[in-house]
Amino acid sequence: MRDVAIIGVGCTKFGELWDRSFRDIFVEAGVSSLEDAGIQGEDIGGIYVGNMSGGRFVEQEHIGSLIADYSGLASTLHVPATRVEAACASGGLALRQAIFAIASGYNDIVVAAGAEKMTDVSPDIATDALAAAADREWEGIVGATFPGLYAMIARLHMHTYGTTSEQLASVSVKNHHNGTMNPIAQFRNEITIDTVLNSSMVADPLHMFDCSPISDGASSVVLTTADAAKKYTDTPVYIKATALACDTISLHDRPDITTLGATVEAGKRAYRMAGLTSKNIDLVEVHDCFTIAEICAIEDLGFFKKGEGGRATYDGETAIDAQIPINPSGGLKTCGHPVGATGIKQAVEITEQLRGTAGKRQVDGAEVGMTHNVGGTGGTAVVHIFSRNR
Amino acid sequence: MRDVAIIGVGCTKFGELWDRSFRDIFVEAGVSSLEDAGIQGEDIGGIYVGNMSGGRFVEQEHIGSLIADYSGLASTLHVPATRVEAACASGGLALRQAIFAIASGYNDIVVAAGAEKMTDVSPDIATDALAAAADREWEGIVGATFPGLYAMIARLHMHTYGTTSEQLASVSVKNHHNGTMNPIAQFRNEITIDTVLNSSMVADPLHMFDCSPISDGASSVVLTTADAAKKYTDTPVYIKATALACDTISLHDRPDITTLGATVEAGKRAYRMAGLTSKNIDLVEVHDCFTIAEICAIEDLGFFKKGEGGRATYDGETAIDAQIPINPSGGLKTCGHPVGATGIKQAVEITEQLRGTAGKRQVDGAEVGMTHNVGGTGGTAVVHIFSRNR
Repeated sequence: MRDVAIIGVGCTKFGELWDRSFRDIFVEAGVSSLEDAGIQGEDIGGIYVGNMSGGRFVEQEHIGSLIADYSGLASTLHVPATRVEAACASGGLALRQAIFAIASGYNDIVVAAGAEKMTDVSPDIATDALAAAADREWEGIVGATFPGLYAMIARLHMHTYGTTSEQLASVSVKNHHNGTMNPIAQFRNEITIDTVLNSSMVADPLHMFDCSPISDGASSVVLTTADAAKKYTDTPVYIKATALACDTISLHDRPDITTLGATVEAGKRAYRMAGLTSKNIDLVEVHDCFTIAEICAIEDLGFFKKGEGGRATYDGETAIDAQIPINPSGGLKTCGHPVGATGIKQAVEITEQLRGTAGKRQVDGAEVGMTHNVGGTGGTAVVHIFSRNR
Repeated sequence: MRDVAIIGVGCTKFGELWDRSFRDIFVEAGVSSLEDAGIQGEDIGGIYVGNMSGGRFVEQEHIGSLIADYSGLASTLHVPATRVEAACASGGLALRQAIFAIASGYNDIVVAAGAEKMTDVSPDIATDALAAAADREWEGIVGATFPGLYAMIARLHMHTYGTTSEQLASVSVKNHHNGTMNPIAQFRNEITIDTVLNSSMVADPLHMFDCSPISDGASSVVLTTADAAKKYTDTPVYIKATALACDTISLHDRPDITTLGATVEAGKRAYRMAGLTSKNIDLVEVHDCFTIAEICAIEDLGFFKKGEGGRATYDGETAIDAQIPINPSGGLKTCGHPVGATGIKQAVEITEQLRGTAGKRQVDGAEVGMTHNVGGTGGTAVVHIFSRNR
């Protein structure tokens, strides 16, 4: 098995990009990552693209061919491109497949990208398209949408562990603060706990500011072998682990909905593969599609004891300058959540942090980082560990 | 890079499976392939599933989690499952990703499956969902559907090379004959050239019997390392090459629409990887979504000179007992074409042929086989070469 490293990253601004199409934003992110890596199109052995629902959002499937074509890599180079999908974890899975392609020896340089264009359809269509990440026959059909499903997780977490609305809100306040320092973020304003608590109720106990938004965006990373990486950059970021775990797609089939079994298992597999524990991780990008999701994630990944995630966040223990910085990018809440792009954007953030180029949101002395990308309510979880040291 | 082999196969009957759901048919094919390989769920390191448009056909994305769950592999085993999509080439891509997973050393036993449930929606929705495999903004928006696009290919092939409607029809007649011997085939009746020519015109010059049908179905193969394969079966089928090539997604951007550049390039890459030429191939499953597609494929893969595919088929040179048997399974035309499943079904057929268990449609002395799976009008082509010898 060959070791793998990231040598280039690129990302569009996330937000409501009404002046650009799905294919435009992919090309923007992709080209930017190639320039960052200092490579040309003809160097690329393969492309993986994470995309959840092109069929619903832009009436387009066959995303691999489309993006190879519009990147100018199809007509003469015939570069192989493959779409992978796992709802909101599609980006993380694209990264994983790119790692496999290089580790196997089949490809030497691979682009892993993610893209989603969600704002060209009405909010009700977007909500229905997203509901296809849950079990359509047992959840969607009775009207369960994602805010509703995560609200049930939040309610049980509050009931079992005494987690409060203020603690949930503190996740959003911290992520908004981090997002003010991130040029790609959809929202770049400070908020307070009152902002969250006074915002519209979406699904009790989740207010509007507990929820990540609907967004457009694309992101891209370029990977090669660890052996070759220094030819392209002085600051490669090495992949130490890639782990994927699935769980029941329906919430009601799980023994305890305050724990995402897929996150726990993917985390364990990643730690084992890297030979590390949570104590060795300097910063984490977790999947905060809702504030409660960040609290579950930091518990399920072993950074806090079960039930302590809300208190720890409220007490500032997950801030950029605290013991374990969580979502220094601003997370899904403030960067926005173009679902296929999110998992790759997490890897872009960790790369910038480990390179030491994250600007005002830089985590001091960051050596080892982690990304955590979830599909649905935890039917899929993908965890990667990255290091600036081979 | 570790060599890879197939140790088990399974397939549902293809057709209008109104009594079973998407998840049911996946489980049926998957379990059947595990039984064939003699393995248990806990042996599985990963699952790849090819599916084109769950979002449109069954309003379900997050297909990996769904199928891991309904196969009983998610709740305690947390088996990693990944969906890949490349329109009608989704199955071929699932096989390719499974090969990468094993070749890399990340997994030892992997299931590659494909599934599509297309008959639960009305034909107009199905046609529109399939049109998402073409370029929505430049082809779909002006009303181009797949029969129309392939009709243009057929018309130019007739104009340039003198290919006739009778020659096109002979592809269908041959495939219907082969399909009579295939228990999973949707159609198992002999037809004549007049049957084709007297059937309704779908898109001139393509009659109804020039077109593959809309179908439900699922198929699955189990893979492991070539080193371990003999522990599971006396007749492993070894993967000699996996090749993927993309081309422009739109037909109008190609220099010559009678040649699928992606097929030519994927074919060349596969021959090079296997160290073989077309003369070494004993049988081929090609992507005959329309009769003209089979003619283009057998030319583009080097079995016949450009322009000779129609004549050769009409003259019987692609029959099961002829020089190069093409689509001994009956192809997409008679097996049916549940789009995500087709690429895996092709691998199931080649496996059965190389094992010598293909019954009445057995190709004598089959040692080396090939599959060819196309997305859209050739935006993607995936070619695999298989051998009964390591």
